[in-house]
Amino acid sequence: MNEQILNELRGIVEESRIFTKKKDLYSFSFDASFGEYLPEVVLQPQSKEEISKIIMIANTYQIPVYPRGSATSLSGGPLPTMGGMVLDMSQYPKTLVIDKENMLAIATPSVITSSIHENAEKEGLFYPPDPSSSHVSTIGGNILENSSGPKGLKYGTTKEYVIGLEMVTPTGEIVRTGGKTVKNVTGFDLTRLIVGSEGLLGVITEVTLRLIPKPAHKMTLLASFQSVVDSGRAITNILSSGVLPAAMELMDKYCIEAVEHYQPSGLPLDAEAIVIIEVDGHMASVNEEIDKCSRICSAFPGSKVKVAKTEEDRMKIWKARKMVSPAITQLGPTKISEDATVPRSKIPDMIEKLHSIRNKYQLNLVVFGHAGDGNLHPNIITDKRNIEEMKKAELAVGEIFQAAIDLGGTLSGEHGIGILKAPYMRGELGVTLDLMKKIKEAWDPNNIMNPGKMFPQKGQTKVVLTQNE
Amino acid sequence: MNEQILNELRGIVEESRIFTKKKDLYSFSFDASFGEYLPEVVLQPQSKEEISKIIMIANTYQIPVYPRGSATSLSGGPLPTMGGMVLDMSQYPKTLVIDKENMLAIATPSVITSSIHENAEKEGLFYPPDPSSSHVSTIGGNILENSSGPKGLKYGTTKEYVIGLEMVTPTGEIVRTGGKTVKNVTGFDLTRLIVGSEGLLGVITEVTLRLIPKPAHKMTLLASFQSVVDSGRAITNILSSGVLPAAMELMDKYCIEAVEHYQPSGLPLDAEAIVIIEVDGHMASVNEEIDKCSRICSAFPGSKVKVAKTEEDRMKIWKARKMVSPAITQLGPTKISEDATVPRSKIPDMIEKLHSIRNKYQLNLVVFGHAGDGNLHPNIITDKRNIEEMKKAELAVGEIFQAAIDLGGTLSGEHGIGILKAPYMRGELGVTLDLMKKIKEAWDPNNIMNPGKMFPQKGQTKVVLTQNE
Repeated sequence: MNEQILNELRGIVEESRIFTKKKDLYSFSFDASFGEYLPEVVLQPQSKEEISKIIMIANTYQIPVYPRGSATSLSGGPLPTMGGMVLDMSQYPKTLVIDKENMLAIATPSVITSSIHENAEKEGLFYPPDPSSSHVSTIGGNILENSSGPKGLKYGTTKEYVIGLEMVTPTGEIVRTGGKTVKNVTGFDLTRLIVGSEGLLGVITEVTLRLIPKPAHKMTLLASFQSVVDSGRAITNILSSGVLPAAMELMDKYCIEAVEHYQPSGLPLDAEAIVIIEVDGHMASVNEEIDKCSRICSAFPGSKVKVAKTEEDRMKIWKARKMVSPAITQLGPTKISEDATVPRSKIPDMIEKLHSIRNKYQLNLVVFGHAGDGNLHPNIITDKRNIEEMKKAELAVGEIFQAAIDLGGTLSGEHGIGILKAPYMRGELGVTLDLMKKIKEAWDPNNIMNPGKMFPQKGQTKVVLTQNE
Repeated sequence: MNEQILNELRGIVEESRIFTKKKDLYSFSFDASFGEYLPEVVLQPQSKEEISKIIMIANTYQIPVYPRGSATSLSGGPLPTMGGMVLDMSQYPKTLVIDKENMLAIATPSVITSSIHENAEKEGLFYPPDPSSSHVSTIGGNILENSSGPKGLKYGTTKEYVIGLEMVTPTGEIVRTGGKTVKNVTGFDLTRLIVGSEGLLGVITEVTLRLIPKPAHKMTLLASFQSVVDSGRAITNILSSGVLPAAMELMDKYCIEAVEHYQPSGLPLDAEAIVIIEVDGHMASVNEEIDKCSRICSAFPGSKVKVAKTEEDRMKIWKARKMVSPAITQLGPTKISEDATVPRSKIPDMIEKLHSIRNKYQLNLVVFGHAGDGNLHPNIITDKRNIEEMKKAELAVGEIFQAAIDLGGTLSGEHGIGILKAPYMRGELGVTLDLMKKIKEAWDPNNIMNPGKMFPQKGQTKVVLTQNE
């Protein structure tokens, strides 16, 4: 980046919040996926006005801008693939107001999602979206990826809770969308367009979330199954019985083994799959529903059901579930984390297909995920230096995507497209992709906001390997 | 419309589904608002392919296209303000599939919304959005206006239930957005952008709705208050007590009088306001919650609470509520129906402001609405031939909008902008309006889809009067 542009940036952001030395830039070159790209400069803005001025400069000189929260993205969302500037939003001032009377939370994008949970719960309120990374990821990042976690089944996704945004557009204007009311039809719904837009449409500077009353009671059970298809059938049987659990989490045996190997958590090593089910609400309904779920799971030959009797038992089950990601990271240096999503009734078919892909390519493919809403997380554990295995992974990932689409599902339920699924977008979306591109071009004519993401680049056909491999 | 274009249209749609005679066109010149505009031709397409071909012709010759469902819009949504073609979608084939296993409904746009309710409930499922007109309005119209009714408070709006769409774009392509999974982040969320877009972005040809399990039990109470501000406070007190009712409907005394005059329904004529509260869910929680609501309402001096003991009593209360619109129509030939929406805590302030506007302009202004989600429906009953009164109504409407915005609310909660609120869009949205226009221009470069709506036209400043009055 030439000195003149850097000097203009120094006129906006003080020196201590600008990084240009290679040793500093490295810290901003990766996320939780497996790509690495160095930016030319990193800026830590502290106000929307600073962001607006930075974007105007970027727009004048056509410099790529990559907003970055805690960088827990699994699809390459914040990676500065074309160099340019990283806007490190993790240092943005953190303010959070819980408006109890209107059941709202108003937050800056740098607020850590779990602190919204904690502060809402102190007021008897509840913010349901809860991505696995919620103790470290920012609400800004969660919103731009629409990452939602286990409770989408009963409570909907992050999108269902964002009712207002303040944003700096790709041309540097500070705008507001939506507001403080759940009902709002004043013009097109730009709020929901921006949620999940992966930073391609602007930089979020404030969010307004709706909250709901905190459920009074919760109960959790852990069911183990002798066949992974049985576990999928148990899930669909529960859903068609009229019970809508708050969460239904599935782990296959490879996952169970990984957790028990990493940190023994009392999971049954003789099971082919386990399902964790949580119901919440009024005490009477919670008791009835957990009984019903228990009976449905017990009906499968060889299954075992354990209902958590104490809060300590309940937390132990959830701790084992949260252990999955760190545990499988121990299995190898490179984790290819997918989140192909299928209609609920297709969960058994999808699990079978994933296991046949595992066998076909002889890959370390583990399956877990938010099975209740069809959102599975097949993870391939490999080593990116092992080119032969990466080639097999490339083929396996293609088959996973195709299987999801063939079953009426979608490429991504919540991890986003980023750089890792872009080449498959046309296959799922067809001409609908062009409608998305038209919005991007209309709002960001110089393509400065997070370029290289979501839309397939010319000649890009590979997702796991780089193009010249 | 010249004969050549008509002949091209005759090549697509058979003669019996094309209307050009003035006596036929009149039937398509109005909606439930008070404007009247004659189209040049009315077409009744019966397939998406026909619609695609019609739109391509419209795009070639730059002819305005106005899609129309049951025309229950209160904001002028389907009015052919610039002539051109009306696409009468009410005659489109009606197909509805309830997919019990995946808890989905898949419908063509012409399906009447109440038939989705009925068919879902037969399967133990529930589609919460329920605009007052649901027994006559189409799901296509409901979706394009995002009209939602009383249950937005607990269950969210129509938007929260639309997960997939098939649409013909303004350039005639047939596209799909979203899909059959609740979680889907494959690209920008075009589905939610199209919901509430008032027909400016295309013609919907199929919708995929998510359904939820039907609540097992319901209880309803009717509370009367000696002051309208008390009724507003009761609502906010209930919401901050942790109870989230399925519906909280408010009617002021002018509304009560209108209903009792039109069809005596046992409403208390000595009350300043009544609130109807419905809770639903498990039997135990329903009993507890209705008790809590009852106690909170009873705490206001002079209030009276009646809990419906039988299903017959419950239906009677709801029948009185559904009677409001027909009843107030009897008070005068012209009904100006607004739906300014405010944050819940501001409901008492907004009601006070509305009553002071009533007094200031000496207008027949009645207030009812979905008070639990801040979505009030102030209605001015007048006669459009009485120019003096219409001038006062024009000023009153301006004050209503300003009051809503000043209280942190919005112009419209669910009726839409149409032609009746367009001049106030810039005031609420500022530069955000330009972002909406950019999307419209990018998708519809010839501005053929529902032109004249939502965006203020040059020089348009009046909403109730025509410009030259």
